[in-house]
Amino acid sequence: MYKYRLVTPGPVAVSERIRRAMAEELIHHRAPGFQPVFREVREKLQQVFQTRREVLVLASSGTGAMEASVSNLLSRGESAIVVRAGKFGERWAELCEVYGIRPVCVDVEWGRAVRPEEVRAAFEAAPAARALLVQASETSTGVLHPIRELAEIVHERDRLILVDGISAVGVHDLPMDAWGLDALISGSQKSLGLPPGLAFVALSENAERALERTTQPRYYFDLRKELEGQPRGHTAYTPSVSLILGLREALRGILDEGLPQIFARYQRTAHSVRAAVQALGLELFAPDAPSYACTAVCLPAGIDGAELVRRLRAVYGVHVAGGQGKVAGKIIRIGHMGDVDGFDLLAVIAALEMALLDLGYPAKLGEGTRTMTQLLREFSLEKG
Amino acid sequence: MYKYRLVTPGPVAVSERIRRAMAEELIHHRAPGFQPVFREVREKLQQVFQTRREVLVLASSGTGAMEASVSNLLSRGESAIVVRAGKFGERWAELCEVYGIRPVCVDVEWGRAVRPEEVRAAFEAAPAARALLVQASETSTGVLHPIRELAEIVHERDRLILVDGISAVGVHDLPMDAWGLDALISGSQKSLGLPPGLAFVALSENAERALERTTQPRYYFDLRKELEGQPRGHTAYTPSVSLILGLREALRGILDEGLPQIFARYQRTAHSVRAAVQALGLELFAPDAPSYACTAVCLPAGIDGAELVRRLRAVYGVHVAGGQGKVAGKIIRIGHMGDVDGFDLLAVIAALEMALLDLGYPAKLGEGTRTMTQLLREFSLEKG
Repeated sequence: MYKYRLVTPGPVAVSERIRRAMAEELIHHRAPGFQPVFREVREKLQQVFQTRREVLVLASSGTGAMEASVSNLLSRGESAIVVRAGKFGERWAELCEVYGIRPVCVDVEWGRAVRPEEVRAAFEAAPAARALLVQASETSTGVLHPIRELAEIVHERDRLILVDGISAVGVHDLPMDAWGLDALISGSQKSLGLPPGLAFVALSENAERALERTTQPRYYFDLRKELEGQPRGHTAYTPSVSLILGLREALRGILDEGLPQIFARYQRTAHSVRAAVQALGLELFAPDAPSYACTAVCLPAGIDGAELVRRLRAVYGVHVAGGQGKVAGKIIRIGHMGDVDGFDLLAVIAALEMALLDLGYPAKLGEGTRTMTQLLREFSLEKG
Repeated sequence: MYKYRLVTPGPVAVSERIRRAMAEELIHHRAPGFQPVFREVREKLQQVFQTRREVLVLASSGTGAMEASVSNLLSRGESAIVVRAGKFGERWAELCEVYGIRPVCVDVEWGRAVRPEEVRAAFEAAPAARALLVQASETSTGVLHPIRELAEIVHERDRLILVDGISAVGVHDLPMDAWGLDALISGSQKSLGLPPGLAFVALSENAERALERTTQPRYYFDLRKELEGQPRGHTAYTPSVSLILGLREALRGILDEGLPQIFARYQRTAHSVRAAVQALGLELFAPDAPSYACTAVCLPAGIDGAELVRRLRAVYGVHVAGGQGKVAGKIIRIGHMGDVDGFDLLAVIAALEMALLDLGYPAKLGEGTRTMTQLLREFSLEKG
């Protein structure tokens, strides 16, 4: 009855324009025709990462780039401060343990952003820690951490800050060079609006020096090889050519729209979704420091999150994400990235109203959509 | 003037049918719609790998699966016999070194297949070696190694045989279970006819036991997590959804045609290309044990391989591969995999005749194509 609408916080809906680019006849990555594509992609990635450093392209999911930054920048026996405020913070800690690095975890209640003073205290308690590992946007909770302030704390100590920007790059203003981020990571299936399969990591000069002295086994994710080859147009191993063809289209679209415009659009979209959800009487899971990548919504007592997600998808074609780990069944997450506009998100709100009513929650039908429509209209008027 | 024809030994031309499947609207890997796709893909991969074991799907290039089999099956301080007969044999040895495993290399002249007695002698000289690491088809030289005989030698000793089948699975008959291969690896951009970005590895029961006792840092390529999740439909990290949609189409096509029919087709195609090349007075680089995945051709004195490759591509639209490593400039390699039929390869032979003449080699124009046409016709007649 309804079309399928993919609105999880990744993977995201891929525009037809990008899908067509990926469906073009395959060229070989050593063909002359691929070189200008890869050059353009690398230059445009630098603009999106707001860096003059090389943005390395890896054929893996985002986790591969997280692993690469750990195994290339930290050595066995060292320690690192880890902000553990959700599932992806846990992933940083797991990666450290696998590589014999002691994670000094700053445990933050899920749904809350880390406070800079918590990280400062962690460094004071563990002054030998080599690095801070943190998410910019913690996709599992919809929280945005204060990266700029955290970077300042790290710089006072001459340590490294490794930032998982998988659901933040291209959504929030996260200027790598201006803020002095030492590793900035992203993936293809979030704000870039591509299918999964590509990961990205850019390293600062300090990080590049650390790269040389690190002793960890690494081969597929050996960033020394990538830093040597990619500026000359060659990945160390066969690149995902079709995804890179799609990436060019995606980056063109992003830079045509303009980063400031995109950040403003995400801000307004996220704001209007949050207001709509609150108009339905629901509470936000991360009210104080919400990421614009997705909105996490607490479910009212008596509503089973898994059942709501299932019903939204089966009856209304709306694919949102449920909660992960300790908040499974307790929240839903509505993604704002990819080929999704304000009207798609309006449909999500309408479907949410209907599904909640179906499940016995007294949603005021039309209150969410009215609120959202008003806010979307204000945004249109502002833009002229 | 001519269409682009991609005939390297990978990446390969991707059929329009597969490209269309990949260009379908993206679904989420946790959506119910993805489950039947992934189930079908896993079942059909088992048929292509000729195994009842799980064929694990990784989001990486084939090198990622090679690394996974080393880091998951071998421990620091152990040793392994490595057949080093080309660039990919060298890769096995490099991977061992990165993980603190001593490679005991059987060095084989490029263009020649390893002899079983060479491997037997290596095991006698290094009886503690835990495993044999070998390519089935060594893509850099176009050689096929005698995997069945090598597996028997390994089994006598109760050791493991890890087979890089990246350009052999789906080309040559390589029955994993019947031959007792402990790890069989492949990638998407070879016989499966997909773009790069997926790798595959299947493990025997013995390999699975080794997995449990191995101590190596591994996270993205931790096969224990994949073996736990994939039989239940979940990869450990976000899978490359669009490539997996294409993979389903590819596998359907392969099994519709039938493995024995495909092996026979490759055999005849490779045979006809080799005969055509010889009819031009050129020599084969791997005359004794040629892989059917590609034909490596020695270049006559005075012909610069790089120049020939360039001319074939620039003037005739035919994209073959040159030599790698120590045979750079000395050979060309014509791939037979992917969306390439006998008539495409006939065009390659015609272009080769013309380009050789252009560069001053006295090719007898029409001799190669006549030979090839005759052989293709015989094959058609046989098939009825």
